[in-house]
Amino acid sequence: MTTVGILGGGQLARMLALSGAPLGLRFRVLDTVADACAGQFAPLIVGDYRDEAALAEFAAQVDVATFDFENVPAESARWLSERVPVFPNPRALSIAQDRLAEKTLFRELGIPVPAFADVADRAALDAAVAVIGTPCILKTRRLGYDGKGQFRIKSPADVDAAWDALGAQAATVGLILEAFVRFERELSVVAVRGRDGEFRAWPLTENWHVDGVLSVSLAPARVDADLAAQADAHARALAEALDYVGVFALELFCRDGVLLANELAPRVHNSGHWTIEGSETSQFQNHLRAVLGLPLGDTRMLGHACMLNWIGHLPDAEPVLREPGGHWHDYGKEPRAGRKVGHATLRADSPAELAAAMARVGRALGRDDIVAHAAGID
Amino acid sequence: MTTVGILGGGQLARMLALSGAPLGLRFRVLDTVADACAGQFAPLIVGDYRDEAALAEFAAQVDVATFDFENVPAESARWLSERVPVFPNPRALSIAQDRLAEKTLFRELGIPVPAFADVADRAALDAAVAVIGTPCILKTRRLGYDGKGQFRIKSPADVDAAWDALGAQAATVGLILEAFVRFERELSVVAVRGRDGEFRAWPLTENWHVDGVLSVSLAPARVDADLAAQADAHARALAEALDYVGVFALELFCRDGVLLANELAPRVHNSGHWTIEGSETSQFQNHLRAVLGLPLGDTRMLGHACMLNWIGHLPDAEPVLREPGGHWHDYGKEPRAGRKVGHATLRADSPAELAAAMARVGRALGRDDIVAHAAGID
Ligand SMILES: Nc1ncnc2c1ncn2[C@@H]1O[C@H](COP(=O)(O)OP(=O)(O)OP(=O)(O)O)[C@@H](O)[C@H]1O
Ligand SMILES: Nc1ncnc2c1ncn2[C@@H]1O[C@H](COP(=O)(O)OP(=O)(O)OP(=O)(O)O)[C@@H](O)[C@H]1O
Repeated sequence: MTTVGILGGGQLARMLALSGAPLGLRFRVLDTVADACAGQFAPLIVGDYRDEAALAEFAAQVDVATFDFENVPAESARWLSERVPVFPNPRALSIAQDRLAEKTLFRELGIPVPAFADVADRAALDAAVAVIGTPCILKTRRLGYDGKGQFRIKSPADVDAAWDALGAQAATVGLILEAFVRFERELSVVAVRGRDGEFRAWPLTENWHVDGVLSVSLAPARVDADLAAQADAHARALAEALDYVGVFALELFCRDGVLLANELAPRVHNSGHWTIEGSETSQFQNHLRAVLGLPLGDTRMLGHACMLNWIGHLPDAEPVLREPGGHWHDYGKEPRAGRKVGHATLRADSPAELAAAMARVGRALGRDDIVAHAAGID
Repeated sequence: MTTVGILGGGQLARMLALSGAPLGLRFRVLDTVADACAGQFAPLIVGDYRDEAALAEFAAQVDVATFDFENVPAESARWLSERVPVFPNPRALSIAQDRLAEKTLFRELGIPVPAFADVADRAALDAAVAVIGTPCILKTRRLGYDGKGQFRIKSPADVDAAWDALGAQAATVGLILEAFVRFERELSVVAVRGRDGEFRAWPLTENWHVDGVLSVSLAPARVDADLAAQADAHARALAEALDYVGVFALELFCRDGVLLANELAPRVHNSGHWTIEGSETSQFQNHLRAVLGLPLGDTRMLGHACMLNWIGHLPDAEPVLREPGGHWHDYGKEPRAGRKVGHATLRADSPAELAAAMARVGRALGRDDIVAHAAGID
């Protein structure tokens, strides 16, 4: 009997546990809060990620450890990795935690990135804005998620406001300035690498964000095969450079048909949720297979799929459940503004059928954005 | 938040809980043993199904109740149904618990059955053998499962041995004599009926048993459309007659192209396990949707599928995990002779690909029976 430990007990840990049960796995989850939603299906240890007693209790109960939460302190991951195998490895985790380190690595690997610059102080910000130009975005290097810790600088007149908002964090989590990319599409490669180095990517996914938070994903992305192959090659290069084991997502912008890397998410990813029903093997199942050294499952799609994210509160489930290819995912969380509380997947045999299903669901839920995305598909 | 109670905590309850989690459901399981495998993913109450204190504790914690185990005493089901909604209804359950009652109902509904007779005592057995002829099978009316409580009478000379084996049970669970059917195929309709009467069946499944226990299932069954439609019609008639709510299986023999009903399983069924990966909506998800009054999901297949049952102990998982359409289900049980400890599903886009996958797995595991079934498929 193998027990998998997961640092972080949110919906990703919950879906890992549900997906791993058929492999005969048991789970232990470490989270800072007692009502972490993975705790409904896996025993939960409540403690801070820096709390050595909690980490020791966790380590004693698990055979291997992985992450639901990418901002586990790198020292905690290293401490754990001296006691149990930890995948992905702490170095990969720490690079992915730092926008400057990851963009520097992308560039070293020949993966194109938007112009960026380290911002150590106010003078560096002014210098960076002068070089990169506007519009641009000031971001915290670490601990950002769902578009938090970001400030958009539309013109040089915004620099003061940007520094007021984030300047204090230059000395703590660090800051980075990035060129603002006027992209045609946002894409993500969700991929998995095994302990033996085997690499597999799911079909490229197309993503739409609202206020910096993922709202809708569509797979396969409507891009030509060359571009998709290039995205896969970038993901593979990255995984190999990091000796990465498990599932990760590489988020990309596509501008004028060229790919620019935005960031690496060192875990199963929101833009890969459609793989549960839309592909032969889900990202959750393959992450566990990778972490355990089992053969990786096939990543081919079963038709066409889209994922609709539910933010803040769950809408009425019936319009989704009435769809022939409609699947519901309630994470068992309390509603709260901005919180990811669930998602739906729609699966269909053709883009036209998928678009029709999206439009029906969008209309029934009064979500004009979904209806509009649907109109672009078939 | 809705809590679903399940009477019985085996693999069926476990797969119900795993499948219901994305609907935001919580579960409570009542089982007689503390290591019931559903308890790994749902809180378990340990108690006898006749124990009113345990039943009351269970009833107080659930919004609706259903079954993993069909032999829950009918009185317990009725007692519960006075406190919480219970699906399927206790009458349907009690008919399905009694081979004589179910065969009598089949006959009333015009569903053909093998010749059968009630066996109240030794004289009745002799009379029944004289009318039905040999070969025939003496079975207990109640509490049989996986071929237990059965004795095959090949010739009149076996009658004494049959009575020695089962005669004592005539006064307790009752006995029935059935003609032995020299079938070409065993089939099952796995179907679901909603609270509103909506009825959906998955594609007909073909089953192979070894020593009275299900060994391999294949879907869709290799029968013509008329026969499949007839099987569905029988299942629908039965569900309507019983005002059945939830998933059930109707087990059928096919002899000379004619269907004969064997039995009704009033629950999700082993021959429907392939629906997890092989159809748009699994039997587990649809059972819960039915029980909760939610819209039923689509029962169409995604390609072709077979299910391999693991009895007694789990074989090596690797040959299955290496298959592109291979999916593993370990129930988290201790190995024990005759026990269902897991299954595998193989999914493929065509019968030929499915047959090739079955043959590879069969050869890798030294299971000639699987290789032989594969040879018959494409
Ligand atoms: N340089 C940029 N140019 C244009 N848009 C950007 C840029 N950086 C971020 N965005 C927009 O903001 C979204 C969130 O940004 P980013 O992925 O950097 O933040 P995050 O907080 O890590 O988000 P997540 O948790 O979703 O990965 C992006 O998906 C994109 O829509
Ligand atoms: N009348 C019959 N003629 C031929 N074979 C039979 C007959 N009854 C039972 N069998 C064989 O024995 C198997 C198990 O019988 P049956 O379904 O009646 O028992 P069970 O104990 O309820 O099994 P399960 O739990 O699998 O439903 C059947 O699937 C079939 O292979």
